[in-house]
Amino acid sequence: MTDPSPLSRDTALALDAADPLRTEGRHGDPADLFDLPDGVVYLDGNSLGALPRAVAPHLARVVGDEWGRGLISSWNDADWINLPARVGAKIAALIGVPSSDVHVGDSTTVLLFKTMVAASRLRPGRRTVVVEPTTFPTDGYVAAGVAELLGLEVRWCDPADPVAALDDDVALLALTHVDFRSGAMYDLPGITAAAHDAGALVQWDLCHSAGAVPVDLAGADADLAVGCTYKYLNGGPGSPAYAYVAERLQGELRQPITGWMGHATPFEMQRDHVPADGVRRMASGTPPVLALSALDAALSVFDDVDPAALRATSLSLTDLFIRLVEARLGDTFEVITPREHARRGSQVSLRHPEAYGVVQALIARGVVGDFRTPDVARFGFAPLYVTHADVWDAVEHLVTVMTGEEHLDPAYRVRNLVT
Amino acid sequence: MTDPSPLSRDTALALDAADPLRTEGRHGDPADLFDLPDGVVYLDGNSLGALPRAVAPHLARVVGDEWGRGLISSWNDADWINLPARVGAKIAALIGVPSSDVHVGDSTTVLLFKTMVAASRLRPGRRTVVVEPTTFPTDGYVAAGVAELLGLEVRWCDPADPVAALDDDVALLALTHVDFRSGAMYDLPGITAAAHDAGALVQWDLCHSAGAVPVDLAGADADLAVGCTYKYLNGGPGSPAYAYVAERLQGELRQPITGWMGHATPFEMQRDHVPADGVRRMASGTPPVLALSALDAALSVFDDVDPAALRATSLSLTDLFIRLVEARLGDTFEVITPREHARRGSQVSLRHPEAYGVVQALIARGVVGDFRTPDVARFGFAPLYVTHADVWDAVEHLVTVMTGEEHLDPAYRVRNLVT
Repeated sequence: MTDPSPLSRDTALALDAADPLRTEGRHGDPADLFDLPDGVVYLDGNSLGALPRAVAPHLARVVGDEWGRGLISSWNDADWINLPARVGAKIAALIGVPSSDVHVGDSTTVLLFKTMVAASRLRPGRRTVVVEPTTFPTDGYVAAGVAELLGLEVRWCDPADPVAALDDDVALLALTHVDFRSGAMYDLPGITAAAHDAGALVQWDLCHSAGAVPVDLAGADADLAVGCTYKYLNGGPGSPAYAYVAERLQGELRQPITGWMGHATPFEMQRDHVPADGVRRMASGTPPVLALSALDAALSVFDDVDPAALRATSLSLTDLFIRLVEARLGDTFEVITPREHARRGSQVSLRHPEAYGVVQALIARGVVGDFRTPDVARFGFAPLYVTHADVWDAVEHLVTVMTGEEHLDPAYRVRNLVT
Repeated sequence: MTDPSPLSRDTALALDAADPLRTEGRHGDPADLFDLPDGVVYLDGNSLGALPRAVAPHLARVVGDEWGRGLISSWNDADWINLPARVGAKIAALIGVPSSDVHVGDSTTVLLFKTMVAASRLRPGRRTVVVEPTTFPTDGYVAAGVAELLGLEVRWCDPADPVAALDDDVALLALTHVDFRSGAMYDLPGITAAAHDAGALVQWDLCHSAGAVPVDLAGADADLAVGCTYKYLNGGPGSPAYAYVAERLQGELRQPITGWMGHATPFEMQRDHVPADGVRRMASGTPPVLALSALDAALSVFDDVDPAALRATSLSLTDLFIRLVEARLGDTFEVITPREHARRGSQVSLRHPEAYGVVQALIARGVVGDFRTPDVARFGFAPLYVTHADVWDAVEHLVTVMTGEEHLDPAYRVRNLVT
């Protein structure tokens, strides 16, 4: 421990008490909408969001009544058939696009694949897909897979300047809005405009931004986006992903996994595939009703949330965390998350040679962050349920861990299967 | 009504009382493991299986405890990361393959896509995929999509003789084991052997067979198979699909949707994709934990089931249904399902010009089958929970519907969204 902080826990409590997100919602503090275990400071909502209280009763009703009692008739009577569109409309509101432009279903990886193939087909004369090499790996793996299928080339750009990689051979620039490791955020509107100037499309991966950072895709004239729903959207482990397709592209969009649910008239059972109008052509197989229903209920936590208040709280939480870590632990950690608000998502990442042990020692104390190889401790601040008091408590434990060298416990030399 | 049947409801009850599937299981009658509404004869388990009683409490525990209390740690502590493999092992037992050869995840359509691309890549000198034109449409749509991506040709075979379409240009023969419309079953071992003789691989779609018909893929030296889990496997609406890959093919198999969960070392976060050993290379994105958990619990209904007894009951039910329909309704309906046991799945399909009205009128009476365009009424006999008494009651209602011309009700001229 170096500089004792001029701040106190009371300062953190005062910040919470004055936080419009906590105090001005019509339904009270949104943290009360989540079921979090006592004694846990949960700073891993950027990996798996906490459980909204609305999920369990809704899912029990869908299973017991809609499936158990309604059986097959629930495709009509409970309107399961339109569940992807209904959930898509809720997500659309969080990413700034018309309600009819979002498809929900499949995993993030599968939707990245579909949109990358579709985007490349929209620029048939161009043979290059630009990807950022330090992005979440699945984005790069999918790009390489698509490139092999379509005879394209993957060009790895400089993460600090992806626009420099654009030229007239680039069909698609595939970027992650907020980096999973560092928490750094790209200038979505500026990069989209630059790519359009170069004649390329942009596919934004919103996994680490939507739900914690305001996203205005329509305002940026964005082309395509994909995101997961189990992080800041709290849809549950492995919940379905979503894809946005700009209305101006939907008519000519051709995704490769042509299944019956993306057909214009699925129940006509025609031999040849005719894509549905609109974003439903992104669909392939039967929608995952139980998982979509959990997500549907989970999204209700956003009903009353002002995106500006959400962002203000997120920045206040990450500001406080950075300030406390530096004030109380000096240069023990390198803060690799940008200081500038415009370049920061909703997480803070600390570099340390023993980051794995640090994370495990904190977890043993009830402060849950996670580790990303080789040396990063990540702390996500889901503004709906993480408070300034949580930030204070987390840093208090971190100071104790480092002072007591708890992170050097030999038990942490054996790593968990999932890190 | 033509010939009054020599059979009575007491005959049906006697068949149930003597049914080894109902009486000889260690856990009693498997029908008691399902939660079916009173007064309903459910003959649509070939579209959406009934709700196993084990699902709701298990799912509530996964949501409340594993997600809500365990949060991110459940990937390790509840072993979510291996859930696809654990559920795959349960399905493997139902399709006659080693427990390590089945991957679970994605929709049926997405897995058909992955396996078709992978299979075509295993036969690089061959440029044709053979598909059966009256199959469930998504199989043909996917084949056409794959053909376009890889520069292959789709060859539509004669449904009565798919083997005749094989030649030395055929990379893959893609067939559905039991036809969704007619309930006709292919000779899986015979066709597999014939295709191998022609140097082709075979991909079997098991959607309408596994769980009601014994499937012995290893015994047939099968290559690849895909199936859904929401029909006879009772996993719930839109539950995840599964894919089987013969062990001898796994090492060279290359599926196109290369995501992090199919990587050899997902948490190393490497830039380039290295496929996992074994069938896990079929994985792409994060596994759908809630849906997989529902399926995991649902599969417990098979724990004590003898496949031979299951098949015997299935055939006894469909035999009785055909016999009663013909005895009591003469030639009102054309039975399009094969009479030969070796060529019949677990459903009976009746052709009638007013089939839609017939199905709707039966549903109004609590007998749930479904309609398939243009003129087929389908009745599925899930042997675990459909009894001979149900068969009797269904035909009794069918006779009443036809006698009273209930199927001509003008209300049935307007069709439901989902038929």
